[in-house]
Amino acid sequence: MFRTHTCGQLRIADKDTTVTLAGWVQTVRKFGSITFVDLRDRYGITQLLFSESLNAELDANPLGREFVLQVTGTVNERSNKNNNIPTGDIELLVTTFKILNKSITPPFTIQDDTDGGDDLRMKYRFLDLRRNAVKKNLELRYAVGRSTRNYLHENNFMDIETPFLIKSTQEGARDFVVPSRMNAGQFYALPQSPQTFKQLLMVSGYDRYYQIVKCFRDEDLRADRQPEFTQIDCEMCFVEQEDILQMFEGLVKRIFKDVKNIDYTDVVERMTWENAMWTYGNDKPDIRFEMKLTNLKFPSHTFLGQQDISSLISGVDFKVFDEAETVIAVAATGCSEYTRKQTDELTEWVKRPQVGMKGLVYIKCNIDGTFKSSVDKFYSEAKLKAIAEAANAKAGDLLLIVAGAEERTRKAASDLRMYLGSQLGLRKTEEFKLLWVLDFPLFEYAEEDNRWVARHHPFTSPKPSDIETMIGNDPTINNAAEYLKHPYANIKANAYDMVLNGNEIGGGSIRIFQKELQQKMFAALGMDEQEQQHKFGFLLGAFEYGAPPHGGIAFGFDRLCSILGGSESIRDFIAFPKNNSGRDVMIDAPSTIDDKQFDELQIKLDLKS
Amino acid sequence: MFRTHTCGQLRIADKDTTVTLAGWVQTVRKFGSITFVDLRDRYGITQLLFSESLNAELDANPLGREFVLQVTGTVNERSNKNNNIPTGDIELLVTTFKILNKSITPPFTIQDDTDGGDDLRMKYRFLDLRRNAVKKNLELRYAVGRSTRNYLHENNFMDIETPFLIKSTQEGARDFVVPSRMNAGQFYALPQSPQTFKQLLMVSGYDRYYQIVKCFRDEDLRADRQPEFTQIDCEMCFVEQEDILQMFEGLVKRIFKDVKNIDYTDVVERMTWENAMWTYGNDKPDIRFEMKLTNLKFPSHTFLGQQDISSLISGVDFKVFDEAETVIAVAATGCSEYTRKQTDELTEWVKRPQVGMKGLVYIKCNIDGTFKSSVDKFYSEAKLKAIAEAANAKAGDLLLIVAGAEERTRKAASDLRMYLGSQLGLRKTEEFKLLWVLDFPLFEYAEEDNRWVARHHPFTSPKPSDIETMIGNDPTINNAAEYLKHPYANIKANAYDMVLNGNEIGGGSIRIFQKELQQKMFAALGMDEQEQQHKFGFLLGAFEYGAPPHGGIAFGFDRLCSILGGSESIRDFIAFPKNNSGRDVMIDAPSTIDDKQFDELQIKLDLKS
Repeated sequence: MFRTHTCGQLRIADKDTTVTLAGWVQTVRKFGSITFVDLRDRYGITQLLFSESLNAELDANPLGREFVLQVTGTVNERSNKNNNIPTGDIELLVTTFKILNKSITPPFTIQDDTDGGDDLRMKYRFLDLRRNAVKKNLELRYAVGRSTRNYLHENNFMDIETPFLIKSTQEGARDFVVPSRMNAGQFYALPQSPQTFKQLLMVSGYDRYYQIVKCFRDEDLRADRQPEFTQIDCEMCFVEQEDILQMFEGLVKRIFKDVKNIDYTDVVERMTWENAMWTYGNDKPDIRFEMKLTNLKFPSHTFLGQQDISSLISGVDFKVFDEAETVIAVAATGCSEYTRKQTDELTEWVKRPQVGMKGLVYIKCNIDGTFKSSVDKFYSEAKLKAIAEAANAKAGDLLLIVAGAEERTRKAASDLRMYLGSQLGLRKTEEFKLLWVLDFPLFEYAEEDNRWVARHHPFTSPKPSDIETMIGNDPTINNAAEYLKHPYANIKANAYDMVLNGNEIGGGSIRIFQKELQQKMFAALGMDEQEQQHKFGFLLGAFEYGAPPHGGIAFGFDRLCSILGGSESIRDFIAFPKNNSGRDVMIDAPSTIDDKQFDELQIKLDLKS
Repeated sequence: MFRTHTCGQLRIADKDTTVTLAGWVQTVRKFGSITFVDLRDRYGITQLLFSESLNAELDANPLGREFVLQVTGTVNERSNKNNNIPTGDIELLVTTFKILNKSITPPFTIQDDTDGGDDLRMKYRFLDLRRNAVKKNLELRYAVGRSTRNYLHENNFMDIETPFLIKSTQEGARDFVVPSRMNAGQFYALPQSPQTFKQLLMVSGYDRYYQIVKCFRDEDLRADRQPEFTQIDCEMCFVEQEDILQMFEGLVKRIFKDVKNIDYTDVVERMTWENAMWTYGNDKPDIRFEMKLTNLKFPSHTFLGQQDISSLISGVDFKVFDEAETVIAVAATGCSEYTRKQTDELTEWVKRPQVGMKGLVYIKCNIDGTFKSSVDKFYSEAKLKAIAEAANAKAGDLLLIVAGAEERTRKAASDLRMYLGSQLGLRKTEEFKLLWVLDFPLFEYAEEDNRWVARHHPFTSPKPSDIETMIGNDPTINNAAEYLKHPYANIKANAYDMVLNGNEIGGGSIRIFQKELQQKMFAALGMDEQEQQHKFGFLLGAFEYGAPPHGGIAFGFDRLCSILGGSESIRDFIAFPKNNSGRDVMIDAPSTIDDKQFDELQIKLDLKS
C-alpha cells in the first residue's frame, strides 16, 4: 500500500504520529522558505508542510497541480486551524516525498466553480470526475443504490439478472440491435426494459424480483435523455395495486432517510390521472405549491361530470375566449402589483414556440378590492370579480388566463404554473413531495393508423371493473371522428406513476396474466395472431402454465438521483454520459469498425447520402 | 394482497389461526372423501386438506398440477408429521378456495428429478425455473452477490456504472457491435469488460471501484461459455500486488462464510505460474489433492534451472521416450492393482482426440515391492524402481507416463491427473481450496504474425524489476525461430489469478499507469501510433494528467456461483441462458428485424449464401 492513511482521515488525536499519504496536488503555496501543499484524494484534503530543509529537493522536483504525490511525515497541530474541512486541525510536516506521476496542466480547474465549459468537461470527463461537485453526485447515486438494495432485500426481493441480448419487438421506442455472427442475418436487440423477463420470473414463482439494470432506447435524444439509462426494476406476485403502492412508497421513504436523512412522515398523496389533468394540466404535477388551474372553459367531450362555468366569460363578445376550445386560469399568488414590463414578459413567455400561446390575459386583483385587467373593455369589474372568485384568486393575486386548443392550452397553463412556481421560489430543491397518479387511460388513440396504442405498455391490465368491457367489445374503430365514443376510450389502466416534485420518477402497473386478455390487448394494438406469436409467443405460452396475478414498477434511477441531488440534469449523475448526439466524446464512440468485422457479421453499409 | 402468509411460513404456533395462502398446486391426492393438495410457492410447501364438504365444489372446479390457487382455512396440527419440510407439523384445513389461473399439463415434471431433457427445459425455461434445484442456484447467486456487495461496501468500494455502448477495439476476443442510427455508418461495441473505464475512474481518484456487471464476447461458444456473462469487477488505487491479494482473498472468504457457512481459515496458497506448469501441467491447478507431476524429460529451453533427470529413462532404446520432447509421470495413489481392463481404459482415455496422446506407459508399484510395467522389455526392475522413486510413487501406486510434444503432453498429464482425481474421489464438491497463481509471462508469442500478444491484456504492468527490460529493448522479433531468446520472452507480468478447485475464478493485475510504458506495450503488440491514438487515445491522454498507481481484479461471477453450488455448468446458475449457438430458444432470439430497421440504421445484409 502506498499510504497508511487517506487524506480525509487524520485528526488532532493523530498528533505526533508518523504517517504516509498519497494523493493529488490540489494547490502549492510558497511562503518564503516554506511550502504548503493541499493533498487531495477521494476522502478529503490534508495540508502538507514542506519546511526549508526540503527546498533543494523541491527545486529539483517541482510540484504542479494534479501531480500524484506520496509523502511521509509527522502529524502536527496547525497554528491557524481550518474549520471548513474535517482535517483542518492538523497538517503533515513532510520528511520525505516522492512524485508518483506528473501531470500536464489540466484544461480546466479541478474545483467546484470550474472554468471548464460543458464540451471540454465531457471530453476530459476523467478530470471532471475529480471535481468535488461531480464526486458528490456519484456518491449520492451509490448511496441511493445501496439503500434500494437493502430495503428490497429486507422485503424478500431477489436480484435476478435478465439477458441483454434479446429479441427486437419494437413496442414503443426503437430498439438498438446487435447483428449475430453465429446466426447470420439475424439480430439481437438490447432491452428497453426487462419487462417480459420479469413477468416470466413471476410465472416461475420467484415472487419478488428486482434489478438495478441498464436499459436502452434508440430515440432522438432530447436534452437530458440518454440512449442507455438505468432502472430500478421490480415485480411482485399475488398483489393488488394497493400492495405495490405501499411497498414502493416505503422504498422511496427509506431512500429519503438513508440518503438525505429526511423522515418523510406525510401521507403520500394520491390523485387520479383525470384530476391531475384537470387541476394541474399534466400527469406529473408538482404539488409542493398550490396555484391550481381553473377550467373556465373546456370541450364538451372531456372531463365529463365537471361543472361548466364558461358562462362567466361568455356573452361579452370577447372573441379570443369565445372561439377558444379551452380557457384556463392560474392565480399567481401575491403578484397583483406586477408592472407592465413584468406582465409583458409573461406574455412573451407564453408566446415562445415551446409554449405556443397567442397571448395572455391578466386580471390584477388589487389589494384594495378593485380589479384591473388587460380585457377591461370586454369585462365589467363585476364580471372580473366573478371570474377571480371562481379561480380562487385573492386580493393581491394576479390571475393569468390562456386560451386556445385543448391540448396545447392545458399544457401551456401547466407550463405557466410551473414557471411561476419557480419564479416565486415555490419549488424548493430541498423540499420533497411525493404523489401517486392513478387510473390512467389504458389506451391512446393513434390518428395516423386509426387504432389504439397502449399508453403504458401492452402488458398493463385494465382496472378489474373494465376487463368485461375490454373482452366484450371489438377494438376496431369504425368511425375515426368519434373514436372517443368507442368503449375502449374509457377503459382505465390498473397503472400508477410515482411523481416527485413534478417529475415522474417511477411507473408501473398490475399486469395482464390471462392469456385471452393478453391476446385481446395485442389485437387491440393491431397485431394479428402471427405477429403476436412471432413477438410474444413465449409469453402467451407461459400464461398457459399457471401464471399468477402480478404487478410491478420501474424507477428511473438516473432521474431519481438527480432530483435527490437537486439537479435538473441526469447527465451530472452518470459517470460517463453521452451527449445529445448519442456520442461519448471522451472515447470517441460510436466509431467505424473494420472490414473483417463487416465480413464476419455478413452485413454492409447502405448509406443514404 | 392475495395471501396472509407464504407457503413456507406456517408452524405449529400458528395452530387454529385463519390464514390465506396463494401458490401453485404441486400434487393432488384423493383419499376417499378427502383431498390433500401440496401448495408450493418460492418459500416452501404447505399441505392443504379439503374435507368432504368441499367435494362438490372440487368436482365442479377440478385442480390440476401447476394450477394457481388461493385458499383460506384454519391451521391444523397434522396427525402424521413430515419432518422433511419446515411446515411439516401443520396442514391447512381449507374453508374456501379460488382457482386464480389454470395450467395445461407441463411438458415435464416440476421436480428435482425432472423427466425433461435439456432442450425441452431450455424452451420452457419459465417452467424449469420453478424446479427447486434451479431456484436454489439462483438463490445462491443472489446470496453471493449480496455478500460481495456488503464486503466491498465495508471496505470503501463504490459501485459505479460504466457504459455499455462503447467503442470497438477488438483486443482479445471479438466485440459485439451495435449500429448507430444517429451516427450512420458508425458502430458502438458492447464491453468485453469495463477495463479502461475502471482505470479512468482510478485516474479520477475514485480510489476503490466495483461493479457486478454484464460483459459480452462474440466467441465461438464452447460448452459452458455464454456470449453475455457477469463479472465482479474491481479496481483499487495506490496498491501493490500484496494489497490486492489480501483484499480479495478476504472477499472470497467472506462469501464462503455468508453463503456456505464455511470458515476458511487456511492460509491461501500461492504458486508461481512456472511452478504450476511444472508441478500440475496447467495454470489453474486443483490442489485439493496431491498427485503432482514428475517431469522425466522436458525441452532444454523450458523450465530453466530445473534438474534434468532424463537419464533415468534414456539409454534403453525405448523410442517412444527417446523421441519425445516431453515425458511426464503421474502416480495414481493406491492403484497398483488395477486390472488389464482398467489400464486399457486409461490408455483409451488418453488416446481420445481431446487428450491426443498416442498411448500410455504404466508401472505398477506392487505392495510387495516388486514392479510390473507395460515396458518391461525395455526397463529392468531396478530402472523401474528408480523411475518410481523419482516420481514419488509408493508401494501400492500406479505410475502413469505420457510422452510427446511439450505443450500437448503437459496438458495431457494435467488432464490425466484431474481425471484420476475425479475417479478416485479426491475432488470433493464440498471441499474448497483457494490458490493464487502469480508471475505469469507478460507476453505470449503469436507465430502467425511473428509478434507478441498480451497474455492477460495490454494494460497489465510488467513486474517492477522487468520494467527496464521492457523499456530498454526493441520488441521486434528479428529471428522467429529464436523468439524465446528475445528479452521480452522472460518478462513477468504483475498479474495474479485466483484459482478455486481447479477453476480460474478471478484474475487481475497491477496496471501500467505511465504513458511511455503503455505506449511501449501497445507498440510491442504491433499497434502503430495512429492505431494507438484511434483506439486508446483517451487512456494515453488520461495518463498525462496525474494517473496514480493502481490495480484490480475481475471474478467470473457465473463460474464462482457454479463452483460454490457444486456444479460443472454455469448455465444452471443463469436465469435465462443461451445455448451453444448463442440462441435463446425460449424467446427465439436472435431473429430477423424488419425493413424499416435496416433502413433507419442504413445497413443491409451481405450474406455469403
